[in-house]
Amino acid sequence: MRKVYLDYAATTPTDQRVIRTMFPFFNQKFGNASSLHSFGQEAKRAVDDSRNKIAQTLKCKEEEIIFTSGATESNNLAIKGVFKALSDKFKKDVKGKFHFITTQIEHPCILESFDALKQIFPRKISVTYLPVNKYGLIDLKQLEKSIQNNTVLVSIMFVNNEIGTVQPIKEIGSMLKKIARRRSHGDLPLYFHSDATQALSYFDCNLQKLSLDLLTFSGHKIYGPKGVGALVAREGIFLQAILQGGEHEWGKRSGTLNVPGIVGLGEAVKIAHQERSSIIKSVQNLRDYFIKKVTQEIKGIKLNGSLEQRAPNNANFNFKGIKGESLLTLLDQKGIAVSTGSACSSGKIQSSYVQLAIGNTTAEAHSSVRFTMGKYLTKEDINYTVKELKKAVDKLRGISGEL
Amino acid sequence: MRKVYLDYAATTPTDQRVIRTMFPFFNQKFGNASSLHSFGQEAKRAVDDSRNKIAQTLKCKEEEIIFTSGATESNNLAIKGVFKALSDKFKKDVKGKFHFITTQIEHPCILESFDALKQIFPRKISVTYLPVNKYGLIDLKQLEKSIQNNTVLVSIMFVNNEIGTVQPIKEIGSMLKKIARRRSHGDLPLYFHSDATQALSYFDCNLQKLSLDLLTFSGHKIYGPKGVGALVAREGIFLQAILQGGEHEWGKRSGTLNVPGIVGLGEAVKIAHQERSSIIKSVQNLRDYFIKKVTQEIKGIKLNGSLEQRAPNNANFNFKGIKGESLLTLLDQKGIAVSTGSACSSGKIQSSYVQLAIGNTTAEAHSSVRFTMGKYLTKEDINYTVKELKKAVDKLRGISGEL
Repeated sequence: MRKVYLDYAATTPTDQRVIRTMFPFFNQKFGNASSLHSFGQEAKRAVDDSRNKIAQTLKCKEEEIIFTSGATESNNLAIKGVFKALSDKFKKDVKGKFHFITTQIEHPCILESFDALKQIFPRKISVTYLPVNKYGLIDLKQLEKSIQNNTVLVSIMFVNNEIGTVQPIKEIGSMLKKIARRRSHGDLPLYFHSDATQALSYFDCNLQKLSLDLLTFSGHKIYGPKGVGALVAREGIFLQAILQGGEHEWGKRSGTLNVPGIVGLGEAVKIAHQERSSIIKSVQNLRDYFIKKVTQEIKGIKLNGSLEQRAPNNANFNFKGIKGESLLTLLDQKGIAVSTGSACSSGKIQSSYVQLAIGNTTAEAHSSVRFTMGKYLTKEDINYTVKELKKAVDKLRGISGEL
Repeated sequence: MRKVYLDYAATTPTDQRVIRTMFPFFNQKFGNASSLHSFGQEAKRAVDDSRNKIAQTLKCKEEEIIFTSGATESNNLAIKGVFKALSDKFKKDVKGKFHFITTQIEHPCILESFDALKQIFPRKISVTYLPVNKYGLIDLKQLEKSIQNNTVLVSIMFVNNEIGTVQPIKEIGSMLKKIARRRSHGDLPLYFHSDATQALSYFDCNLQKLSLDLLTFSGHKIYGPKGVGALVAREGIFLQAILQGGEHEWGKRSGTLNVPGIVGLGEAVKIAHQERSSIIKSVQNLRDYFIKKVTQEIKGIKLNGSLEQRAPNNANFNFKGIKGESLLTLLDQKGIAVSTGSACSSGKIQSSYVQLAIGNTTAEAHSSVRFTMGKYLTKEDINYTVKELKKAVDKLRGISGEL
């Protein structure tokens, strides 16, 4: 049976070239990057090389890159680390709350990091959750109006993991920069963080051009290894560690450096950058072909999200009268891997809050299926998928009797 | 030039068999273990297999194993996670402080986790730091006396990373269990946590026999990969996540599971358990031979730690009149990797608090060098090391003119 992986937003296979760069660091160049001897220094050089590759790509300094265990940790660090540092730094000056702004469609690790802080420090933090329109886009004017004198961080994801909507990061960055400049010396800072986990393969995450202060990404979404990611935090940003210990990463993240993972992450970022334009082209062609074919051949569907402001690899449809899980199961029996909602909400069967935020009903939310393409996909895979998808939809609708 | 790695306590090369088990999970069985389709379920089965191997070895339930990014995260989770869960659960009942007991010679990630909690919640937590004797051992009676009605967690490392001292974990466990049993229903619990990062290769970490409630370990100290570890937390333990997000690991640790890392960790634990007795024998023989030769051939040395209550792979000497760093550098020029203090205290040049806790002077602390053996070491490596060590010591003492 043909196997078609259409869940690249959940995770990607590690690129063979990435694996090759990692391999020597398991048992040949195996030193602890903190060790002072040559085994350690050899490992440290490899970590520094990776930092350099990433810094070149993201246009940041090497020492601004904090390696973590992945995007979840990076996002926790960004939110909690900024809050902790600022509430320490400004504890005498700020009587009220530190104000944060985010969106209703962020990844759970952002939303629940805020929840955790609000639970522990109810009198020290308030959060505005920006709504999105039916395409999943925030309103820039509403964002501007939401900014107060005590707003310290705006965290807005680059690409939504479920519906692929791309927020206007550059415009947001420029606007925030202007507002931050108007603040006086001694005032609170105003930082801009973006979770670019789903973006790095398809968008230039140049921190300077985007006016970003903090950027999250992980390896396994960009053909790198699982278990490794980074938070980039511009020089001078107030940020406190959330994992205490040996003071690695300039005291921002303790724990023995995952040398093979970090080496792989650097290579994955480099390859993503070098091959971006050709991969965008091939993936977007396949995605557009898929959307066209599905729209032609299957009735009672709706494409979620924006057509223009959309990552090139994402198609997310509602299938009227069908449960997403049932469709997933039938497709899986034909070797086709898709997802409902997000794989990150491990094991939870509940309505996708992203679907509800763009105005879908609960029934519509339950009928949604996400197809995410990637660089190893072929046109034959898409043809096979459309054929099997049509059969599965017909079968489920025959059973349910709806439509 | 011969290369001799004598820093196995800093990190170990990954066992070739471990690498082989990990390898298919990078780009063949690459699914996200949270995905519902067959790619995901294949990854989940691999994670479950690893859980099973670890549960068999540590005599715990599979669902008691929480995979993390390593020992630092596991220790942060144990300390902060228990504190957060208990202060939530008992917030109405407990007016005063939650009391924790640990030792003065724990790893920085334990000590600094307590510091972080004390800084944020000064009125809700107090910590007793048990001193150690000149061998690095705590006093059981002193521990018993330190326990109060509000003591909720005792965290004592199994094997010290610098001097190799082994604490009487089983005796501590039995004692704590008895005290916990005397508490009434509705009282605070009394948990026993041990950081077994340096222990798992050489000691049976059977949670039942040791009466442990929480156990920390990591991959890269036991011939497994870097960037992965676990916290085992017995069923019913109050423990809250410190990383928020997709609610992986039963809500105790969010973040996409590092499937290759977890697969490698399970295999490393299995191999460590199966081959323990033969590896103890070979490593201890080499270590004892090393200590004998060094003691015979080099004057003005002192072995730190206990002779009996000591991990079989550790030798830690003070070299009178010599700076540890200078000795490290000279040995490194001869291809021999050793450490001063601990590699975990990344980049910090300060007196080892472990050395000071066992009663050494600052000068003695600065003169200490750690030699840690492992399973790939040979007698020829040791002979070469003793020869070069003697030369280096003579050279340094000639220069310094002391002794």
